[in-house]
Amino acid sequence: MADNNKIVVALDLFDPIKTRAIAQKIGEDVFAFKVGWPLILGSNSDIINDLARYAKVICDVNLANIPDINRAITENIREHGAWGIVAHPFAGKDALDAVVKSAGSMKVFSIVAMSHPGSATFIDRDTEELCALSASSGAYGVMAPGNRIDVLGKVKRLAGQMKVLATGIGTQGGDPLLALRGGADYLVIGRSVYNARDPLRELKRIDAVISRLGEEQRPEASV
Amino acid sequence: MADNNKIVVALDLFDPIKTRAIAQKIGEDVFAFKVGWPLILGSNSDIINDLARYAKVICDVNLANIPDINRAITENIREHGAWGIVAHPFAGKDALDAVVKSAGSMKVFSIVAMSHPGSATFIDRDTEELCALSASSGAYGVMAPGNRIDVLGKVKRLAGQMKVLATGIGTQGGDPLLALRGGADYLVIGRSVYNARDPLRELKRIDAVISRLGEEQRPEASV
Repeated sequence: MADNNKIVVALDLFDPIKTRAIAQKIGEDVFAFKVGWPLILGSNSDIINDLARYAKVICDVNLANIPDINRAITENIREHGAWGIVAHPFAGKDALDAVVKSAGSMKVFSIVAMSHPGSATFIDRDTEELCALSASSGAYGVMAPGNRIDVLGKVKRLAGQMKVLATGIGTQGGDPLLALRGGADYLVIGRSVYNARDPLRELKRIDAVISRLGEEQRPEASV
Repeated sequence: MADNNKIVVALDLFDPIKTRAIAQKIGEDVFAFKVGWPLILGSNSDIINDLARYAKVICDVNLANIPDINRAITENIREHGAWGIVAHPFAGKDALDAVVKSAGSMKVFSIVAMSHPGSATFIDRDTEELCALSASSGAYGVMAPGNRIDVLGKVKRLAGQMKVLATGIGTQGGDPLLALRGGADYLVIGRSVYNARDPLRELKRIDAVISRLGEEQRPEASV
């Protein structure tokens, strides 16, 4: 599968049995899985170990607690074998630092913009500062909306060395190709894959679309 | 126990067995328990049902997701018998509305200020707007720092009919009496109770302190 390393599949299901079945089918064809609180509510943190057998696991627990609680949650998730973890930098530098410092070799992704309309009120106002704070805390990557190309582009310019994970692709309206052209390093795709009758087939269909971007860019790259 | 209805004990432990044991001991002497992601990581959402046998349970899951995920988590927690749920309004009105609308009879508490220094950077700037948004979405209460009396007082003035839950009491430096005088309707106390050799005794000790405020205020109340 070409360019399979660009797709992060969000598994926002509560049912661990169904999730494991999908993970097993598609694990070789994703860059990583992204799992959040729904799945943990439906099982417990052992599900992270289970899924890590099939692909890297990014725990999108969007941490926004006081530093001590952020630290406790991060350590637990690290011990369960996650590859990455997601935090909200708006809780401040001490809260994000607590995540980065207790993450060990886990990658920390920081949410600097979101995919839903309501995020315009507060988060959009602070995106520039949130990016700067994320970089200064040592975040590995940032999350930004793949369905809001202008915001995504702004984040890409601000992100520096940090990787850009684009959310909101598929059901929320984001187009994979536009998001990649707009600055995404990875695409987070959820419902359109896990709700598909055949998740692997849908994943391969999206990958075929993405591959076209690679072909477009090849002549330039060879110059 | 006088005034026992003012204390919310935060049970931020991972171990469900230890947590259940403490809950059973102190349940009759608290207004409610507050539990968060650490406990759910260590067990699963069934722990909410367990604890609800001893007292009301407020799930401090500080929701800050897109509306669809906020909704899914809220429904799951409601189905497990929680009395209250906590959300971050900074994710915007649609995200908070999703919590309130799917909460049913569960009370929604909205975080408008926090107890750690880092919260000054972004959240403090927006506290007034976050309070207004919380009220307009129909939140039952707000959470504010009991260890930052000036911010607590500001929130109390902005809260209107919404109840004020004060965090940061005890280990984080907040004084129960000052927080009640400063505008708190309820006090959230965590580590100083659950880490005590005898949690019930520590709870009763704090309650005795609080009762003094009741006595001070009695003459005024009888005027």
